[in-house]
Amino acid sequence: MALSLVTSSAVLAAEFTPAQLQTVAQLRDKALNSDLSWQLLTALTTEVGPRLPGTENDKKAVAWAQTQFQQLGFDKVWSEPATFPNWRRYHESASILTPSEQPLHLTALGNSISTPAGGISAEIVMFETLDELMAAADGSLTGKIAFINYRMNRDIDGNGYGPAVKARNKGAVEAAKKGAVAYLMRSVSTSEHRFAHTGGSHYQQGVTKIPTAAVANPDADQLARLVALGHKVTVKVDIRTEDLGEGTSYNVIGEITGSELPEQYVLIGGHLDSWDLGTGALDDGAGVALTMAAAKLIKDTQRPKRSVRVVLFAAEELGLWGAKAYFKQHEKHLHNIVAAAESDFGADVVYAFESNVHADSLPIVRAIAAQLAPLNVQYIAKNEAHGGPDLIPLAKAISAPIFGLHQDGTDYFDYHHTADDTLDKVEPSKLKQNTATYAVFAFMAADAPAMIKGK
Amino acid sequence: MALSLVTSSAVLAAEFTPAQLQTVAQLRDKALNSDLSWQLLTALTTEVGPRLPGTENDKKAVAWAQTQFQQLGFDKVWSEPATFPNWRRYHESASILTPSEQPLHLTALGNSISTPAGGISAEIVMFETLDELMAAADGSLTGKIAFINYRMNRDIDGNGYGPAVKARNKGAVEAAKKGAVAYLMRSVSTSEHRFAHTGGSHYQQGVTKIPTAAVANPDADQLARLVALGHKVTVKVDIRTEDLGEGTSYNVIGEITGSELPEQYVLIGGHLDSWDLGTGALDDGAGVALTMAAAKLIKDTQRPKRSVRVVLFAAEELGLWGAKAYFKQHEKHLHNIVAAAESDFGADVVYAFESNVHADSLPIVRAIAAQLAPLNVQYIAKNEAHGGPDLIPLAKAISAPIFGLHQDGTDYFDYHHTADDTLDKVEPSKLKQNTATYAVFAFMAADAPAMIKGK
Repeated sequence: MALSLVTSSAVLAAEFTPAQLQTVAQLRDKALNSDLSWQLLTALTTEVGPRLPGTENDKKAVAWAQTQFQQLGFDKVWSEPATFPNWRRYHESASILTPSEQPLHLTALGNSISTPAGGISAEIVMFETLDELMAAADGSLTGKIAFINYRMNRDIDGNGYGPAVKARNKGAVEAAKKGAVAYLMRSVSTSEHRFAHTGGSHYQQGVTKIPTAAVANPDADQLARLVALGHKVTVKVDIRTEDLGEGTSYNVIGEITGSELPEQYVLIGGHLDSWDLGTGALDDGAGVALTMAAAKLIKDTQRPKRSVRVVLFAAEELGLWGAKAYFKQHEKHLHNIVAAAESDFGADVVYAFESNVHADSLPIVRAIAAQLAPLNVQYIAKNEAHGGPDLIPLAKAISAPIFGLHQDGTDYFDYHHTADDTLDKVEPSKLKQNTATYAVFAFMAADAPAMIKGK
Repeated sequence: MALSLVTSSAVLAAEFTPAQLQTVAQLRDKALNSDLSWQLLTALTTEVGPRLPGTENDKKAVAWAQTQFQQLGFDKVWSEPATFPNWRRYHESASILTPSEQPLHLTALGNSISTPAGGISAEIVMFETLDELMAAADGSLTGKIAFINYRMNRDIDGNGYGPAVKARNKGAVEAAKKGAVAYLMRSVSTSEHRFAHTGGSHYQQGVTKIPTAAVANPDADQLARLVALGHKVTVKVDIRTEDLGEGTSYNVIGEITGSELPEQYVLIGGHLDSWDLGTGALDDGAGVALTMAAAKLIKDTQRPKRSVRVVLFAAEELGLWGAKAYFKQHEKHLHNIVAAAESDFGADVVYAFESNVHADSLPIVRAIAAQLAPLNVQYIAKNEAHGGPDLIPLAKAISAPIFGLHQDGTDYFDYHHTADDTLDKVEPSKLKQNTATYAVFAFMAADAPAMIKGK
């Protein structure tokens, strides 16, 4: 009898009441009809614009987010500092010099040093992959500019990014080891347009730092054709950047406080910073706007049992610095996180939902999935979600209950880290679907009959 | 009886023989299977690249075209000089300063003067149309930067270009009349991408010359949103250009000499120059490559009765200077032109064929149209074709028999006059269809049973 009661209770623990499900339906409809996330995204990308960590605009974004949270009536609004390596881009230009002078569209990778005044002019040596460059003979690139021509593939889940980004992370170091004076790579990009894609890059102690930049796909095509034709291809690269030492920015946090178990919370959010080239609409203004709006819509519909905390992480682009600071600051209370999901993959439709939780919590996950289905979100039962990049430090710290609300990323890398990442690339109706998805997920995780547990 | 004979002869005059039609079918198939135009376009845009009149690359393009004509075995190859106002772009950058600093993507319009060293910083005053600017009170723009926000519409025949280009032709003059210190306009563009579109612009004697530039569509959106929000929008514009006085370039001409009436000729071609931003693949490398290839394919198939002359016009972008020179140079022999068509509208499929000829010649036109039908080219019976821009001086001089082989221009103004006009924007299979269309048209006009006459 006692056993029977326990079993029954475990089953019941996954069951939301009809009243709760009615609230969910109401919330979902409200979110699909609300343009709040679009308003927030428009304001952030228009009135602030690019938000490179440490810049005046970054400060404006922090102030903007605090003000918005307050005006939206969040119960608690606060910020927490995060330090990061403060880097600036001042100028970048390049051209092909031989066999024929023509502009070369490139952008310095984050952390790149400057070229000497007047730029660097040298012959390029082309490789198809990072491995091919690493296999080159020592000293074989002395005085040359190494160029990796690897092309990223397009896929709904962005699986081409990992293989392609290796050349961004390690290319400059490997090229310098062989004697190169600068490093160029084909952008990590699926676009056919003439935008260069920036992104983080790294140097290695003991290896000479060389300027490092990515060229637009059509320019990489042009270099590759010229090399294939047997020409000596000389390019000039002129980059001015600055390392300003340690900078400080802020994670901005807004919370809707739970009615019964306020210390437990669902963490949703995005990152507030962006690269300097575009206005960071897809990366990650959308994530900021839609999670803020989702929490506000929850508050307006029904306060859940547990809290919903929107964390807008600082300095993600330069190396997850806000996330590292947040999860360090809260390391003693990470067990209070009952669900975590970051939106940092644009704003195309959310097409799939995946968890990474303890088996005991799967019935709740399935109950949430059932309420996402009307939004055309399919359930991926693998239970291996990674969450967004800012959740990496959380996942390293504990087996947290992490969720993936997977946006269709087919076109995401057409715009990612380019000047072309602007508001017009977001489709308002899709942003509403995203907002509804996050609202349903966050409400149900916060109002669940039992606490969701990590593995 | 005599009358009957005349009638019969007039009818017969429009009839191509079965042997001729067999040749046409052979030529059409050959063109559809030839990658010659693609090879030519690839070489021109890769090994020469941008071809602003008067630059080293322009000289390289002239030399390239002469060499290609010779290597392709044209019967006559020559060049004719053309002078033009020699203008250079050295630097352009801009930013929004208030309410928030952010890059502004713009490009100087052709002929623009420089800003003073250090640029011009001023508040913008926005107008939706050129007419609205012209209606502004005198002196109302003193010290301001005028900005026209007119958006071009998209259509298969590019009919949005005319209304939009007015602001490019006259905007700087009208803005200066009201006291503006610089002039900005939304690009003449259908693109959602962050490319500014350059193009010719004009000053007027007696009106102060002010710097003039076009901003990318997403940037125009941003300016318009900021103005709509009531912000004081200040921008900084920094442009360095140079007026080098009169320059000289060359029309390059290759001819396949007719077997019976060699002095009569079909004129096809494109313009060899391009703007400096892209590599001029759509505008107008495609026109150059496909007309060269069409004539070469004709020669390889069957020499027609009349000549086929490929004219690659110089300095079109700066004001049809090569065309003016060509039709001036040949003004006494313009009656020898039995058909003229310029390809200068990209390389999407040719979807329609239209003439502008004497009524007597319409049976021949219909016979040609019948042979274009298998290429999915429809016949437009209006008989009001304008031909390409370089045929404007011809049409002004005489009622020449002019033809339009209309490319689908739906996407043309996404790329026109931008850095993004590069080889990858041309679809090889469509370029083959273009080439086949021109080959069939040029062969049949040159080999027609009677001379095609102008109105």
